[in-house]
Amino acid sequence: MAVTEALESNCDVLIIGAGPAGMMMAAWMARMGINARIVDKRSTKIYAGQADGLQLRSLEIFDSFGFADRAWKEANHMIEMCMWNPGEDGVLRRSDRVPDVPAGLSRFTQIVLHQGRIERFFLDHIKKHSKDRLRVERAVLPESLEIDEERSDDYSADNYPIKVQLRHLTDEEAAPAQANGPTVNDGLFRSNLVDDDTDDLINKGRENKGGTETVRAKYMVGCDGAHSWTRRQLGFQLEGEPTDFIWGVLDIVPITDFPDIRNRCAVHSASSGSLMVIPREEKLVRLYIQLTEIKPDASGRADRSKITPETIIKAAQKIIAPYSLTYEYCDWFTAYQIGQRVGTNFDHKNRVFLTGDAVHTHSPKAGQGMNVSMQDSFNLGWKLGLVVKGIAQPSILKTYQSERRRIAQDLIDFDHKFSRLFSGRPAKDVMDEEGVSMEDFKQAFLNGNMFASGLSVDYGTSMLVAKPGSSADQGDGTDVSSTHHQKVVGRQELATNIKLGMRFPSYKVLNQSDARPWEFQEKLRSDGRFRIVVFAGNVVSPQQQARLKVFCQHLTSSGFLAPHIHKSVALLTCHAAKRTEVELLRDFPDVLHPFDSKMGWDYDSVFVDDVSYHEGFGDAYKNYGVDKENGCVVVTRPDQYVGHVDSLDEEGFVGVESYFRGVLVPVS
Amino acid sequence: MAVTEALESNCDVLIIGAGPAGMMMAAWMARMGINARIVDKRSTKIYAGQADGLQLRSLEIFDSFGFADRAWKEANHMIEMCMWNPGEDGVLRRSDRVPDVPAGLSRFTQIVLHQGRIERFFLDHIKKHSKDRLRVERAVLPESLEIDEERSDDYSADNYPIKVQLRHLTDEEAAPAQANGPTVNDGLFRSNLVDDDTDDLINKGRENKGGTETVRAKYMVGCDGAHSWTRRQLGFQLEGEPTDFIWGVLDIVPITDFPDIRNRCAVHSASSGSLMVIPREEKLVRLYIQLTEIKPDASGRADRSKITPETIIKAAQKIIAPYSLTYEYCDWFTAYQIGQRVGTNFDHKNRVFLTGDAVHTHSPKAGQGMNVSMQDSFNLGWKLGLVVKGIAQPSILKTYQSERRRIAQDLIDFDHKFSRLFSGRPAKDVMDEEGVSMEDFKQAFLNGNMFASGLSVDYGTSMLVAKPGSSADQGDGTDVSSTHHQKVVGRQELATNIKLGMRFPSYKVLNQSDARPWEFQEKLRSDGRFRIVVFAGNVVSPQQQARLKVFCQHLTSSGFLAPHIHKSVALLTCHAAKRTEVELLRDFPDVLHPFDSKMGWDYDSVFVDDVSYHEGFGDAYKNYGVDKENGCVVVTRPDQYVGHVDSLDEEGFVGVESYFRGVLVPVS
Repeated sequence: MAVTEALESNCDVLIIGAGPAGMMMAAWMARMGINARIVDKRSTKIYAGQADGLQLRSLEIFDSFGFADRAWKEANHMIEMCMWNPGEDGVLRRSDRVPDVPAGLSRFTQIVLHQGRIERFFLDHIKKHSKDRLRVERAVLPESLEIDEERSDDYSADNYPIKVQLRHLTDEEAAPAQANGPTVNDGLFRSNLVDDDTDDLINKGRENKGGTETVRAKYMVGCDGAHSWTRRQLGFQLEGEPTDFIWGVLDIVPITDFPDIRNRCAVHSASSGSLMVIPREEKLVRLYIQLTEIKPDASGRADRSKITPETIIKAAQKIIAPYSLTYEYCDWFTAYQIGQRVGTNFDHKNRVFLTGDAVHTHSPKAGQGMNVSMQDSFNLGWKLGLVVKGIAQPSILKTYQSERRRIAQDLIDFDHKFSRLFSGRPAKDVMDEEGVSMEDFKQAFLNGNMFASGLSVDYGTSMLVAKPGSSADQGDGTDVSSTHHQKVVGRQELATNIKLGMRFPSYKVLNQSDARPWEFQEKLRSDGRFRIVVFAGNVVSPQQQARLKVFCQHLTSSGFLAPHIHKSVALLTCHAAKRTEVELLRDFPDVLHPFDSKMGWDYDSVFVDDVSYHEGFGDAYKNYGVDKENGCVVVTRPDQYVGHVDSLDEEGFVGVESYFRGVLVPVS
Repeated sequence: MAVTEALESNCDVLIIGAGPAGMMMAAWMARMGINARIVDKRSTKIYAGQADGLQLRSLEIFDSFGFADRAWKEANHMIEMCMWNPGEDGVLRRSDRVPDVPAGLSRFTQIVLHQGRIERFFLDHIKKHSKDRLRVERAVLPESLEIDEERSDDYSADNYPIKVQLRHLTDEEAAPAQANGPTVNDGLFRSNLVDDDTDDLINKGRENKGGTETVRAKYMVGCDGAHSWTRRQLGFQLEGEPTDFIWGVLDIVPITDFPDIRNRCAVHSASSGSLMVIPREEKLVRLYIQLTEIKPDASGRADRSKITPETIIKAAQKIIAPYSLTYEYCDWFTAYQIGQRVGTNFDHKNRVFLTGDAVHTHSPKAGQGMNVSMQDSFNLGWKLGLVVKGIAQPSILKTYQSERRRIAQDLIDFDHKFSRLFSGRPAKDVMDEEGVSMEDFKQAFLNGNMFASGLSVDYGTSMLVAKPGSSADQGDGTDVSSTHHQKVVGRQELATNIKLGMRFPSYKVLNQSDARPWEFQEKLRSDGRFRIVVFAGNVVSPQQQARLKVFCQHLTSSGFLAPHIHKSVALLTCHAAKRTEVELLRDFPDVLHPFDSKMGWDYDSVFVDDVSYHEGFGDAYKNYGVDKENGCVVVTRPDQYVGHVDSLDEEGFVGVESYFRGVLVPVS
């Protein structure tokens, strides 16, 4: 791929790195029609190994894009977690079984699937929604970054303050060197135990015929991993603690008489270290194995040459004895020695952003890495998209750091605690204070479950979340309070289980028009729009009809909000009368199910909390904590997080409009 | 596509026609690795219109191949059926709402999807499983058929008694002429109101440069529609009644104030005829509209030129008044005038078979055509596959006609009754004997629902179904009793709700190894294997352990059956003890979860009837009507229909072996 030296072009958003964080960012760009580019230094997408647990929230997000079903079908589903440790006789035994995630959290459970497949789903999605215009450009890496600091606050449409030089590599340059022959995929080259090769790649590229080009961008997102080149250009640091624990990872088809090899297991041996079992798709099992016999050298690093599939399986055999464990087929292996670290800054002047491993590193055992990384981009992508399109005020970009840096801090606290409990020797008895109490371990697992599901994320107050309190306290310290004249505070009491700052939960409701049951969250698609969810209450009561009518009249007559309705703010209705006593065309204001002269009435926007013929009763109002008579109004952000709650009346309309005045740009 | 005249080749199965019936046949061929070919006279697959309701059983079948999820996701789901007819004031009103299918029949409900998408799922599936070896050969049609009658009973591997000359057309020859311009797809060319063009195509092809080839086949399947060329070569007739009723079909995006436009509706107007609403995907709605003003001429045929989208919508507007109904977008239209007819013969000497519209025609309104056609091939495909591979005895091929001709007869009886009730004028009152009672219509719909779901199929006794009674009485009259020395009769009382001759029903069970819930039927994949489903009962009781052990010892030591186990007869176990009190490796004989030296133990064959963490309790033993203590053994055919039921002991083993002696060829 020879590119002429003089090539120059503009784009709105330049994404560096095409791992899951970069792919998620590109997915938003494709959905929102943004002129974006995504480049990756590698010449191929990955084919084995890498992080692969998908937590509940990630599946909900995939579903909002429309491809959760593909992951759900191909993945292994993890249902049960078993804990093994020595009994009083010193022999390994199962001490506990618990559900892998608590019941009732979500329509999904935790699943495990090869990261390469997840990247495939993203690629297909990006291709479809960008109409093939946005493609991952591989074997391309940035080699210089300049930012026009003086114009970084200038959000005029023709200002591209970022200048990046990109180098195009040849395929051979871009392919990583792998140590082991062709049979076993060696993941050590991406492990933190070896040095990053980005600078080598740049130097190699400079010597050869792969050309360069200059890109001017409005925004840039560094999704370029733990060794982030982008982060280094900005001079930001990762802060945190190193660790002495060294872990090996094996993906094998196990041959074993260990009874729980198809369950997630935490195995604490008496004195040979710990092991985690993560059953995967296609008969594979991933084992995380503590390598107690490999110690860091004087530099603090482990000796790489000692780490092979053979040394790792030997360590596993000691831990899992008296059960036997061997394999004929090994798919991949690696090792790591990771502390918990968080980036000092997640953005530079609202122009350059860092997501994923570029701003947080931690151990992979908690199955959080890929999930939190994707969710960083899921948080940022729609904000960038709306600002680029001139729909939202640029000030919302500040909330990326305040919201996600706080999550990263929570993540490393969780991982720090869990890793140490998992790596420690089990206590022999209650007097053994150096050992880890297995009861403490179990409690830490159960307590961490909500966090690990991704559903405990609770963003602090800002112009995007109408919560009481201080934005600095509730986030990472950044001030992201609304610049609007008066602070809007949502009336949480009107929807007690739709928490401001948390994701909109899901219960089954029926489509008023055809009685089909839907998870209500499925109707909050990731299309870049905010939503006003109208809980219309008991619409057969004349008083409630009148309240609904007044609210809708305000919506359609508001000089500020009306031009945004259906375009950047969608409407979604759920009422609580009996479905069969209500008619869509008679009982609901037109704005809630708009008419199109070519396509007729919209039949996909009004829902009802009623019993289904085949799938039971979602009891949505009760579960959402909304009054069935009076209803309420909930505003969701494009990422399904709850921004505002208010009453279904004139006063409530004022609150809703006020919320949006703090976020959206007036349509002139 | 020029083909030299001299080209000759052999194949095991030659399929004529690539509609849904042909695709289903090809899917089996791909799954079972049969050397097959499939040809179709058209140059492209269809892009609009055509039958598109998928009944519950079709979805179960798609699921057994692994692509029901694609249909389920893209389709419109039909949940409710509404009945509209004049009230006492003569004005149209909704008289009833009923669920479109009764609750509890299946994990699926009825859905509607464009036939072209269904063909796409088949094509993808065939490609994947045949490793791209089996492809639909388009613009190819047969022009002569010779059968070596003297060798038709000779099943030696090198006998190809069928000789077919195939002609390859050019694309222009193969494309159908369409009357209406480019905007609306005119389906009349495929309607029964116009003549078939097969002979024209053959004649055109003879004049030109498209070449011919000769194929010698062991078996041939005519899936070539109502005008079946194959049927004509064999000289078989369709028998039945014509009809005077003429119906138009419109696929439109409707603009209407009719409240139930997104529900399935039967609308009986006072005197303007009837109309059926079938809501489809992508905002489309299909309307079946009785054209009362178009009468057949002296020949009994309607005047085609009078049938246009405009005349059809006008008829619809009269019926649906006082509601308004117009459209801006029409996707497709057609008209038909169909009686109910069934083929006299479904096969010729077990060598040439007819499936689908080639052997039954009826009105499309009941949504049965595509479903019954696909299910014909689903019944035949595995039988042909097993006989071609030398695994099953050729005598099983006779059961195709006895099983499916009976279903076709039931289908036209159902359609006859339903069509007449639907086409008739509604009775004004109880004294109006010429009119149709709307209560009778509702009852006919509800009674027909089980039939329409496809789940009432109940195959008669034969070597494949160990039922008591006469095979001639229970089928279409063909004698298909077992040739085995003694007739086997299943012990239905041991599994009262797993009916001999009916499809194996589905309830949720858990995988013993990982606690994941599955619909048990999902484990009866369409891989061409019979299955012995071992209901192992209370495996923690020593007596039951002993019974299970004895049964399994017989399985593994039987000279007849053991060589077939895991190869053409798979084993599937479900026990009824508590999951957590049982260990796979300790409590189950190896044959139920076999060991492979490279892949370890099989973890996907032993299940348990227990409560799940997240998806409730399937209560499978109770629902299947199986004793939780003693269990039983059920034999399913490769198409999930129940062949035999027996006890889990030595006597039961004798019954099971006896069943298979009547079906399978001994392994020498």
